[in-house]
Amino acid sequence: MTAVDFAAFTEQLADLAGRTVLPFFRTALGAEDKSHGGVFDPVTEADRAAESAMRRRIGETFAQHGIIGEEFGEDRADAEYVWVLDPIDGTKSFIAGVPTWGCLIGLLHNGRPIYGVMTQPFTREIFIGDGKAASWRGPRHDHAIAQRKLHARACASLSAATLMTTSPLLYPPDALEKFRRVEQEVRLSRYGCDCYAFAMLAAGHVDCVMEAGVKTYDVAPLIPIVEGAGGTFTTWSGGDAARGGNVIASGDARIHAAALELLAKA
Amino acid sequence: MTAVDFAAFTEQLADLAGRTVLPFFRTALGAEDKSHGGVFDPVTEADRAAESAMRRRIGETFAQHGIIGEEFGEDRADAEYVWVLDPIDGTKSFIAGVPTWGCLIGLLHNGRPIYGVMTQPFTREIFIGDGKAASWRGPRHDHAIAQRKLHARACASLSAATLMTTSPLLYPPDALEKFRRVEQEVRLSRYGCDCYAFAMLAAGHVDCVMEAGVKTYDVAPLIPIVEGAGGTFTTWSGGDAARGGNVIASGDARIHAAALELLAKA
Repeated sequence: MTAVDFAAFTEQLADLAGRTVLPFFRTALGAEDKSHGGVFDPVTEADRAAESAMRRRIGETFAQHGIIGEEFGEDRADAEYVWVLDPIDGTKSFIAGVPTWGCLIGLLHNGRPIYGVMTQPFTREIFIGDGKAASWRGPRHDHAIAQRKLHARACASLSAATLMTTSPLLYPPDALEKFRRVEQEVRLSRYGCDCYAFAMLAAGHVDCVMEAGVKTYDVAPLIPIVEGAGGTFTTWSGGDAARGGNVIASGDARIHAAALELLAKA
Repeated sequence: MTAVDFAAFTEQLADLAGRTVLPFFRTALGAEDKSHGGVFDPVTEADRAAESAMRRRIGETFAQHGIIGEEFGEDRADAEYVWVLDPIDGTKSFIAGVPTWGCLIGLLHNGRPIYGVMTQPFTREIFIGDGKAASWRGPRHDHAIAQRKLHARACASLSAATLMTTSPLLYPPDALEKFRRVEQEVRLSRYGCDCYAFAMLAAGHVDCVMEAGVKTYDVAPLIPIVEGAGGTFTTWSGGDAARGGNVIASGDARIHAAALELLAKA
């Protein structure tokens, strides 16, 4: 059984997540602080409702599969196939009303991400990848829904690159110092956007995205999209990014190598 | 003649700007660096095409009115009525593919902003204000277009506030130090978004927005929207923000006063 067999089901999950989450967007919601004194990290009703709905659907369809979810933890995480769910990646953007959050759904096969979806239901966009190819569906400029292949763009050197990260405020001091080493080499550094930044990298508008201290569910669904668009996605030391940690994605392997070299020296 | 008489015309300009700009969004474009060695500041074909189209429309309809535009400068800037145009506020978001830029159109009467519009054509949103009221039109969660009044939200203290700014990298050192004084008091600080942050303040999702070194065309169109939603919009020293500089907008006058006090002491 290949990743392609799960394509329709994964898109159904994305549709379910988007339809569950969107009615909560820009409504007054009490944001719960689950970080216990750390960085502000809101959880919303929407997050929980969407993850519950997806877990139910997966359980009905693939009872033997595992699930790793942002809200409700791990369930058979050592199964051959494991679903990775982050119903709202970018909860801080979500509560600020800014449509750069997304619903993330990934599928691991023996621990390797083989299928990934990011959907932004407010903008009616979906980004899909299986590591070999990636595509986008969303509104054309006449607002009709269209589909196209995603291709990361060429970028020969960091001095020509656009870099994105969600927020340097989220970095621990040692990671921040390493990030700044890369940031000072790029043409343009932009903050904000969470998963949307990785989607824009896959779409060829951004050259490099870095994040520190992310979890499996933040990143595993994005790897098949970025790699499917021709990009590279590793940890800061060049290892497997699927388990999270400090991660970096690049559209062009040349700037990826250059950034890893700076990170190793920093 | 009051601001209300210009409402339909201003919305027509916004529609014209949005329709002109959107086909350029997420297309490969050479970004021209007009900053001559300073901070990277791209100009796009879209920016110029939209401002030209709006200038033509204004000239045909109100030949005696003045115009201040981001791309083509000032024309009768001392006229009784002056249009303020920024076809793409947030060009860096625009070139990164992120839909948090907007088209800004404002109308000054004897130097005072009396009407303002921000439109985001990719998300099909428009934010409109005349200083006394403000409204939003855009997609509901079933994607049908709806309209509602905008109301900034109450926020008793900075410790409960969400603060936004486009990027601390754009601040000169002295302004950055003052900004950090406010930032360290808030609950959540978020970067990115340009004009979209002010729109989210008017919509009641963000409590405070600060920017440093902005121009009239970045800010004058947003003042009637923020004030129309019940917010406060001044310079960092509490003066008139319509001419730009270092500006701050708040949804609740209490946190505005608290932030100004911190800025005065810093």
